[in-house]
Amino acid sequence: MSLKYKVLAKDGNARLGVLETAHGEVRTPAFMPVGTAATVKAMFPEDIKATGADIILGNTYHLMLRGAAERIHKFGGLRKFMNWHGPILTDSGGFQVLSLTKLRKITEEGVTFRSHLDGTKYELTPERSMEIQYFLGSNVTMILDECPPYPISYMKAKKSMELSLRWAERSKAAFIKREGHGIFGIVQGSVFEDLRAKSAQTLVDMDFDGYALGGVAIGEMQELMFQTLEFTVPLLPQEKPRYLMGIGKPKDIVGSVMRGVDMFDCVLPSRSGRNGQAFVRGGTINIKNAKYSEDTKPLDDKCECYTCKNYSRAYLYHLVRCKEILGAMLVTMHNLTYYQDLMQALRKAIEEKRLSSFESQGFI
Amino acid sequence: MSLKYKVLAKDGNARLGVLETAHGEVRTPAFMPVGTAATVKAMFPEDIKATGADIILGNTYHLMLRGAAERIHKFGGLRKFMNWHGPILTDSGGFQVLSLTKLRKITEEGVTFRSHLDGTKYELTPERSMEIQYFLGSNVTMILDECPPYPISYMKAKKSMELSLRWAERSKAAFIKREGHGIFGIVQGSVFEDLRAKSAQTLVDMDFDGYALGGVAIGEMQELMFQTLEFTVPLLPQEKPRYLMGIGKPKDIVGSVMRGVDMFDCVLPSRSGRNGQAFVRGGTINIKNAKYSEDTKPLDDKCECYTCKNYSRAYLYHLVRCKEILGAMLVTMHNLTYYQDLMQALRKAIEEKRLSSFESQGFI
Repeated sequence: MSLKYKVLAKDGNARLGVLETAHGEVRTPAFMPVGTAATVKAMFPEDIKATGADIILGNTYHLMLRGAAERIHKFGGLRKFMNWHGPILTDSGGFQVLSLTKLRKITEEGVTFRSHLDGTKYELTPERSMEIQYFLGSNVTMILDECPPYPISYMKAKKSMELSLRWAERSKAAFIKREGHGIFGIVQGSVFEDLRAKSAQTLVDMDFDGYALGGVAIGEMQELMFQTLEFTVPLLPQEKPRYLMGIGKPKDIVGSVMRGVDMFDCVLPSRSGRNGQAFVRGGTINIKNAKYSEDTKPLDDKCECYTCKNYSRAYLYHLVRCKEILGAMLVTMHNLTYYQDLMQALRKAIEEKRLSSFESQGFI
Repeated sequence: MSLKYKVLAKDGNARLGVLETAHGEVRTPAFMPVGTAATVKAMFPEDIKATGADIILGNTYHLMLRGAAERIHKFGGLRKFMNWHGPILTDSGGFQVLSLTKLRKITEEGVTFRSHLDGTKYELTPERSMEIQYFLGSNVTMILDECPPYPISYMKAKKSMELSLRWAERSKAAFIKREGHGIFGIVQGSVFEDLRAKSAQTLVDMDFDGYALGGVAIGEMQELMFQTLEFTVPLLPQEKPRYLMGIGKPKDIVGSVMRGVDMFDCVLPSRSGRNGQAFVRGGTINIKNAKYSEDTKPLDDKCECYTCKNYSRAYLYHLVRCKEILGAMLVTMHNLTYYQDLMQALRKAIEEKRLSSFESQGFI
């Protein structure tokens, strides 16, 4: 195998593990901060690491525009370009093409679309997605799949899932094997159990380094998402990591870890940070609320992050109200620390087999 | 005296010195980064310090709106509020009232105006300006003066200068003396030699801790500014620091140091940093220019800052073009480092009595 994954402990369906890559280990359950355009917004790479993050996510779509991927390749890859020395996972670009572009057209070959920046026409095929992710130097490459909307009819979901399987085959064939670098399949099939089963089984037969659960979170309720996990996760091999794409809120993550998921990514902590919403033990606070204008307490008095050690809610209120860049920097740093603290607490709870009482531990 | 200033060496009219405050020493010639709204934009306080800055500037106008000064006072002052532990100089608020507000009215008592944020009516008098600067915990308080526009008639300049002298007297009377905290007078009189002389002589008789040169840079050419310095600086006592407000470009600073100025502040390095203009040895570069898109070099290969040690021009080009916050963070950090390196080089040149050849040393 190109990527090694070890399950170190289990608590119910939840797993404590470690994914070994050419650029370092990823402790799971893992949360990956999103670095859309070769930067986790408002964060120095050293500070991302200091929050406890082992791995970050890069977006193929944003990095394929204007020839950026080729330029980054010349620089020795995304890691060197952006000064992040740890593991990187890249998505395939498919989801952003779906959500950000206009005039897109999906054929057997791939998807053509016009850039949301300047209208330039591009084609993204499984082979091109693999090439871009190779250029970026990704440790975890994702297959190109079609991401259908939700809700969707059974027949459309079936057709889309089957196309995604053919693209998975082509993705795997185009992927260039390197030690410490791997490729993940993505289970599709919407909320239809037999389609998910077909997708999972076929992908497992193709033998990927890990398996993502795609199309799960787009517009669905948490309950439906958990149900989908409950019948999909058992179809996946025990010895491979499982990745729930684009999730989520702290409670979504905890519930998904309990159902056997190992890896997560989400823009929520960083995007919220820029808008003044802070994740704290027990909930969230909107720092723009006037009640914080004279509050001398830190965002979260149990948090050890730089922001909580040095700044009051009143100062953050002042910065965010004044739209100061430092406000985005400080709240983002706190939120990413909260998420990593949450993952660390989950890992500890699994190790100590007390995950079932996690909700009483004050994190969520 | 409340502030101690020592001249350690001289080279022509230029001086190497040290200003001792209750919160640390300021090596002069000194450049003060501008922290308008209780933050030097896009900079962590530790990183401001790491650029080599000994002192920062806070703006009374921005901190007097919406009751911020009173809130900051409750927090123990601006230093504690914003997590900057070194010396602080605050302006009087007068200049921003002039440049940012509408419907302002100047009387003998002071100036009334409406906030540029929400139209709320405020009054700023010498006594109120002293109170706010006291609330902020400023080490160097500036008197409230009237800042006339340029050009201005002789009679108007005279009248304005005389009002400023009466406000200077009231400012000094209202200033609360504390060890390691002081108050600077501001010489006015536009470009008229006899008015400048009258202003300087009267202020020196009042005995301030230092003297600023006001109304020098507003719309004037560099040549005229230097002429004004040449006849004003000799009117000021040798044993007190001299501060040229709101200046400037590197060449302005070098020329002013040669004419005996000790302290400077300017938004240029930080504001330019947010717009992608970088100050480098020998000039400036606009990192948004397409020619940098594949440039693997750092902004300035002689610079030791975090940005230059870790990032290429191509990466900064990418960030600034994508309007990423990290772009503002990195270029601001570089620019502030460049300015502090310039000041350090000036201090060294004065100590070694080779300031006359400074222009050949590659900085400007």
